[in-house]
Amino acid sequence: MENNRSVVVSTRIRLARNVSTVPFLQNMDEKAARDVIDNVYDAIGKGYELIELKNISAVDKQILVEQHLISPDLLKSKWGALILNKERTISIMLNEEDHIRMQCILPGLAFSEAYAKIDELDKKIESMLKYAYDSQFGYLTACPTNVGTGMRASVMMHLPALTMQGRMTDVIRALSKFGLTVRGLYGEGSEALGNMYQLSNQVTLGVSEKEIINTIDNSALHLANMEADTAKAIYAKNKIETEDRLYRSYGIFKNAHKLDSKEMMSLLSDIWLAVSLGLLSGITYDELYELMIKAQPAAILKKAGGEINILERDYIRAKMVREATKDITYS
Amino acid sequence: MENNRSVVVSTRIRLARNVSTVPFLQNMDEKAARDVIDNVYDAIGKGYELIELKNISAVDKQILVEQHLISPDLLKSKWGALILNKERTISIMLNEEDHIRMQCILPGLAFSEAYAKIDELDKKIESMLKYAYDSQFGYLTACPTNVGTGMRASVMMHLPALTMQGRMTDVIRALSKFGLTVRGLYGEGSEALGNMYQLSNQVTLGVSEKEIINTIDNSALHLANMEADTAKAIYAKNKIETEDRLYRSYGIFKNAHKLDSKEMMSLLSDIWLAVSLGLLSGITYDELYELMIKAQPAAILKKAGGEINILERDYIRAKMVREATKDITYS
Repeated sequence: MENNRSVVVSTRIRLARNVSTVPFLQNMDEKAARDVIDNVYDAIGKGYELIELKNISAVDKQILVEQHLISPDLLKSKWGALILNKERTISIMLNEEDHIRMQCILPGLAFSEAYAKIDELDKKIESMLKYAYDSQFGYLTACPTNVGTGMRASVMMHLPALTMQGRMTDVIRALSKFGLTVRGLYGEGSEALGNMYQLSNQVTLGVSEKEIINTIDNSALHLANMEADTAKAIYAKNKIETEDRLYRSYGIFKNAHKLDSKEMMSLLSDIWLAVSLGLLSGITYDELYELMIKAQPAAILKKAGGEINILERDYIRAKMVREATKDITYS
Repeated sequence: MENNRSVVVSTRIRLARNVSTVPFLQNMDEKAARDVIDNVYDAIGKGYELIELKNISAVDKQILVEQHLISPDLLKSKWGALILNKERTISIMLNEEDHIRMQCILPGLAFSEAYAKIDELDKKIESMLKYAYDSQFGYLTACPTNVGTGMRASVMMHLPALTMQGRMTDVIRALSKFGLTVRGLYGEGSEALGNMYQLSNQVTLGVSEKEIINTIDNSALHLANMEADTAKAIYAKNKIETEDRLYRSYGIFKNAHKLDSKEMMSLLSDIWLAVSLGLLSGITYDELYELMIKAQPAAILKKAGGEINILERDYIRAKMVREATKDITYS
């Protein structure tokens, strides 16, 4: 399992649910939206924080998107709200496309743990609210692609070696045969910045939760091994070139005084690969991923505490990166 | 004076002389060539090393060229030889284009000291050998461009800021009005790799040694100030961009695992500039220049001790650079 941590960043399970007594979002009024927020917040009990999006700044909203705690779609909702646990492993979006979209996100490959947590939460809410459910179709959702289990299971994977070898097109084609789809760091249509890919199920109807999870769990494991083997093979075949490339990235990462988001992602991916190949040490994969998220544009803007231009933003990002990577050394 | 050291690398004075009793090189036989070597070596006294080029390897010959101790032309001579003092500040080429070409090379801007040394040597040889001399023209040389003083005075200057601003074309044009010419690191036709330029006099006839030296000394001083002012102005105007560029070069220099000669020169020029702007410390200009010469192709080949391919050569160079720059730190 430890071995996968170099490739599998995080596991996420998301359930889409709707309250049977409330119209779907497009036909909803403010009173109904209010009820969804209050009823779900009451149902889940203590230890959670409620954030109503209309009460926070545009930058804070964007940061929640960067942290994968809400979808960009929630920003479009007039009555969007978010419930978070302290560790931020559980987040519940309210009044997004569906009334309720709850997710559990955990580090590494951890489907059974994530499913246990989200299932517990789901049952807790269901005990207080009546879900829109059809005995033939399963859970009913705003968009037909979610009808059935209403479940989206996904893994975030770092695949630099397969990308470098131009093998991702084949990988994506192969995975689609198992009903799996591959997206970039920030979902559909987003680029695979930093060689980060999200692997998730496409189908929710006619398959059980267990089947979906098994398929994606096995595929992620297989892909993680493929990636690790490919990385080792590239290194064994091109030792000097690989060390040159990765150590140069390290040198730039630790010394740049301005870094745009795209370059930061690309260098961070190289550092990550270097750690996984045993060339660098002094930082964990979790710390690298945290840095990746902390150095996204909105988070930088927030840190600056006011209006900044692009040069200032890239300067702050570089400073943050230098600080976060100061303990990394040659292994 | 100290201030110039960031710009003026070295001062060189070279005198071309021929022995009146021996035919010029194109009409010379082995016996005459032998006489030149033996007579000059006898004349200069103890403490010098004599190297006959036919006795050393092609790599060793090329290293002497890289070190500016001989010209590439000496390699074409059948009877070429070299006399060196221990410090290698004095080198005397024998049977190159002229019978005798003696040079003194010193660090920094040091024309009076260099002239004193070379003049002493010249007088010592002249006291034992009769030079080809014409009362109207002065010293006679194989090529008419050297007739007169037979003297070539030059300074090696590091001019990154003027180069960056695209001002070297104007500088070269202005200097030519004073009878000065500008070449790259390895003489005529060579590129200004590492932003290194050699400034030297074009005219040897109808001017005195003192006039030549005054002109080039003043020009070098003026140019050194211009370069230093330009570098400071660029930095003041573009602080973040300049630090970003120079610190990135530092990061690459200290971490690259392969470096070709051209990139090495370019990075070394950035490190040099960073030291002169007070951004980096822990290495002297002399050490940087020494590294530049030590990391040239033939010197690397010699260090490898046998046949190597390009990748191996660039790997050894990068290793040498990492070793030589390990004490450099942010100021």
